[in-house]
Amino acid sequence: MKGEPEVAVLRYGHRPGRDDRMTTHVGLTARALGADRVLFPDNATQSAETVRDITGRFGGPFDVELTGELNATVENWGGVVVHLTMYGERVQDVEGDVRDAHRNEPLLVVVGGEKVPGDVYEAADWNVGVTNQPHSEVAGLAVFLDRLFDGRELEQDYENAERRVVPEELGKHVVDV
Amino acid sequence: MKGEPEVAVLRYGHRPGRDDRMTTHVGLTARALGADRVLFPDNATQSAETVRDITGRFGGPFDVELTGELNATVENWGGVVVHLTMYGERVQDVEGDVRDAHRNEPLLVVVGGEKVPGDVYEAADWNVGVTNQPHSEVAGLAVFLDRLFDGRELEQDYENAERRVVPEELGKHVVDV
Repeated sequence: MKGEPEVAVLRYGHRPGRDDRMTTHVGLTARALGADRVLFPDNATQSAETVRDITGRFGGPFDVELTGELNATVENWGGVVVHLTMYGERVQDVEGDVRDAHRNEPLLVVVGGEKVPGDVYEAADWNVGVTNQPHSEVAGLAVFLDRLFDGRELEQDYENAERRVVPEELGKHVVDV
Repeated sequence: MKGEPEVAVLRYGHRPGRDDRMTTHVGLTARALGADRVLFPDNATQSAETVRDITGRFGGPFDVELTGELNATVENWGGVVVHLTMYGERVQDVEGDVRDAHRNEPLLVVVGGEKVPGDVYEAADWNVGVTNQPHSEVAGLAVFLDRLFDGRELEQDYENAERRVVPEELGKHVVDV
């Protein structure tokens, strides 16, 4: 978010077709909940297109990148790395430390798709479980970002939007901007 | 959660095949983040099976139901109804009121899949946006439940589990129970 060290989300692994929607939702969740950038595996071209299209219509800044270097991105990250996994430490136990570290350094959040290799567990500064139950990488990312930013992400303004939703008790109110 | 009025999640709409994973993730997220029950449309048989299977292995109590009566479920709900939609009021503005209402009454959380009809907007006590940005119904549900329960859901114990993940800094630690 503006005025803070970068938060990037790396989607680790993608099967075209089968994972398109989940990968797209990872990207849209990253954008809506305060991350600055998402990195997809280079075969996730369709999800990248969808997230860029939404960013064009609803605003940014938010970057979408494709990379063939998933492991290198994690290992060479100049900052803090969090890997979200149901096997990790409890989010409520480590979120304070992660928040402190992110005050001064860019944060990479790794979200598994396919099987994540042991190298990623070792390269991560924290392996973090949003519960130690099997559920959804999208849900885990959402709760993690909301806690990382302590709700500040809900107050974000988006620049260069073509349209904006006005919150309403009832009905749908969309304005052109 | 135990000792509190029920929270049920209703997945509104499901296209077999195309929506199987999203619907499954709605169900697993509901279970992992403190809801007591999920209701799926009656054509979501495969997602229901998956969520029941996970509940059998990782514990409960958590109920999975199929219903052909989506609208009637919303309209006849004996308690409070929240409909999650990007067009709704801001979650940070209404969550306190929802939390207060749920202290005394069962809560139904409606999560859209396909287009949700205006009747549901009208039947809901609150239409709530977890951001007014397009992202993911799974992410919206996750943040909503974490805020509703104020993090208490992360401390839940599961009964009758066959296995349990032990949180670890590194690696995967699963025990039979």
